[in-house]
Amino acid sequence: METERMNDDILLHTRDSRGVHTLTLNNPRAFNALSEAMMAALQRALDAVAADPQARAVVLAASGRAFCAGHDLKEMRARPELAYYQALFATCSRLMLTIRKLEVPVIAQVHALATAAGCQLVAQCDLAVAADGATFGVNGIDVGLFCATPGVALSRNMGTKQAMEMLLTGDFISAEQARERGLVNRVVAADDLAAEVERLVVRLLGKPREALAMGKGLFYRQLETGLESAYQLAGQTMACNMMHAVAQEGVQAFIDKRAPAWKS
Amino acid sequence: METERMNDDILLHTRDSRGVHTLTLNNPRAFNALSEAMMAALQRALDAVAADPQARAVVLAASGRAFCAGHDLKEMRARPELAYYQALFATCSRLMLTIRKLEVPVIAQVHALATAAGCQLVAQCDLAVAADGATFGVNGIDVGLFCATPGVALSRNMGTKQAMEMLLTGDFISAEQARERGLVNRVVAADDLAAEVERLVVRLLGKPREALAMGKGLFYRQLETGLESAYQLAGQTMACNMMHAVAQEGVQAFIDKRAPAWKS
Amino acid sequence: METERMNDDILLHTRDSRGVHTLTLNNPRAFNALSEAMMAALQRALDAVAADPQARAVVLAASGRAFCAGHDLKEMRARPELAYYQALFATCSRLMLTIRKLEVPVIAQVHALATAAGCQLVAQCDLAVAADGATFGVNGIDVGLFCATPGVALSRNMGTKQAMEMLLTGDFISAEQARERGLVNRVVAADDLAAEVERLVVRLLGKPREALAMGKGLFYRQLETGLESAYQLAGQTMACNMMHAVAQEGVQAFIDKRAPAWKS
Repeated sequence: METERMNDDILLHTRDSRGVHTLTLNNPRAFNALSEAMMAALQRALDAVAADPQARAVVLAASGRAFCAGHDLKEMRARPELAYYQALFATCSRLMLTIRKLEVPVIAQVHALATAAGCQLVAQCDLAVAADGATFGVNGIDVGLFCATPGVALSRNMGTKQAMEMLLTGDFISAEQARERGLVNRVVAADDLAAEVERLVVRLLGKPREALAMGKGLFYRQLETGLESAYQLAGQTMACNMMHAVAQEGVQAFIDKRAPAWKS
Repeated sequence: METERMNDDILLHTRDSRGVHTLTLNNPRAFNALSEAMMAALQRALDAVAADPQARAVVLAASGRAFCAGHDLKEMRARPELAYYQALFATCSRLMLTIRKLEVPVIAQVHALATAAGCQLVAQCDLAVAADGATFGVNGIDVGLFCATPGVALSRNMGTKQAMEMLLTGDFISAEQARERGLVNRVVAADDLAAEVERLVVRLLGKPREALAMGKGLFYRQLETGLESAYQLAGQTMACNMMHAVAQEGVQAFIDKRAPAWKS
Repeated sequence: METERMNDDILLHTRDSRGVHTLTLNNPRAFNALSEAMMAALQRALDAVAADPQARAVVLAASGRAFCAGHDLKEMRARPELAYYQALFATCSRLMLTIRKLEVPVIAQVHALATAAGCQLVAQCDLAVAADGATFGVNGIDVGLFCATPGVALSRNMGTKQAMEMLLTGDFISAEQARERGLVNRVVAADDLAAEVERLVVRLLGKPREALAMGKGLFYRQLETGLESAYQLAGQTMACNMMHAVAQEGVQAFIDKRAPAWKS
């Protein structure tokens, strides 16, 4: 398997020959904080994925002792200007919405601490796998800054009172608690983390890209509407999906009791 | 107890003297697939329930080795036409919305495999009881067809990431996982499944039909609106419910420390 | 610590020198029913909290064998008039919305039975701690009155099918089940209940009031909108929060590796 490297100082970006993009936050001394530079690098990388018609999945990982410690507080303290902060959070929200809008599934591979906007990153991904020692918190309140934007993603992953407790107290939860509440899909031993994510990626690679893309887009759209509209949107999506060659071949293969002949 | 039979080839439909309608998917050779014929039969049966002013509850069960395997793929493959698929999913969504709009509670009695639109049926019911060997999946993606409409119901039963994992990977979950996530209410041994559903039905029969009907309608309506509107709708419903003879008698009986004299 | 007493016959209201208001439902003979008098007393007390610029938290507790048994059925039975019931539920909903709109966190301290509108009170609080013997139900249906307004709050705390089962059957759940489903945050031994709530209060007192206030308001607003609007609202809130002296000081203290010098 050939791997293309599009590395940045602080963000490693590889793309293997299967179309799997791995983005690795790589500023361990800063606990991979979402500095302006890190957000710009992530946005560039995600835009590159969006522009890659053969992309199949994104793995969002990190190196060092933390997964991601949230915004860069030094940077923020240095520019006490409303317009600066508004632009900063708009940049971060755009990054989060890019993850949501990507056609391919995005998997967070969380080996350690994920706090504030770092926890938001995990919450915003489509899927998340955590090492059993990882911890999760939205503890901006400890510095007097309520984690409002992380709360947007968090409250769409777990119950209201549970999200509220984390936001109001700044308390951390374990990987196992994160799984019970819905913030991550699976928890494994640290040694098995990369392998478990790879197993999940392999599952996804076995499905046709086009169907995953139609499905991901529809799924989040229908979540934001009432039941009747949701069914209308979803019915249209399924009809279009069913007209697509991948479904026609998939269904025929099922009838013929053979594997579908999809080019992946 | 007298039981009326309105059986169809592929859908058994009984109504006992208490007003309990039992619909049993009965095409085991096709794993009770939601073929056009099965959907038409189900729609007719649910319409008959809607037209029965003494109906009290619906139990949705199935015979054979599966509960329901979703749409009939052979039928779908035979008509590769957009208009046909649009009509098909519209028919299925109408069926799902009929379950939601019925005044009486609908309980899924899931003894075995429920996949794709079969899993959607379970998700769309008001309540669900599963045998411990039942499994649940929305695995259309395995044939290249993302389970968009099942995802509508599923994502209103469990967390976003958990629903997304099932939809993207096609992986199945056990009855116990379905219970933990919220897709079913109770899990029992297979031998006890019918008895457990009957216990639930008996609980419901002890309540006045009119109050259950007002409540079910309101419950789903208020879910789709903001908190203030929800309280406004719910307050109006409770005021009307309280004016009704069943509540006046129920409350008086409570004050008198006697059982309410409702005709059931 | 000095404590101010603003007691009512049926509602004890204390405010300690830290700004912690404790409201104790105190009509044990009526199982602390939400009679007209009790709702008026609660509304007055919550309005007093809203008017207290140094308020920091509210603890909602109760005395006697029950936490709260819901509406006063005798009172309701005595006035079988639609306009009366409409006004009654509007009064109750206003009370619930006042809890939501208060700037400070509201914690339910549930030592025993919470039923119908009593369960709604728990669901409506921002946080809840329960004694392990507490039980929860929305059993109006047992007197022919579907718990429509309690269902509004309940369905925003737990899964749809789980809420529906409680509403349709009137069945109670244990404190541990309430925790698993999301209705309460923590369950402790009865002897430890007050101390556990106090520990939570102390956690909240360590955070700046202004950030908690901005955060609580934003959190519930963003929950009711789509993801993009939610991020827009939340980004604005964070920018404003970051401009506030408490965040500037908090972030600076973090950089300086010292405790923030907030006046609390």
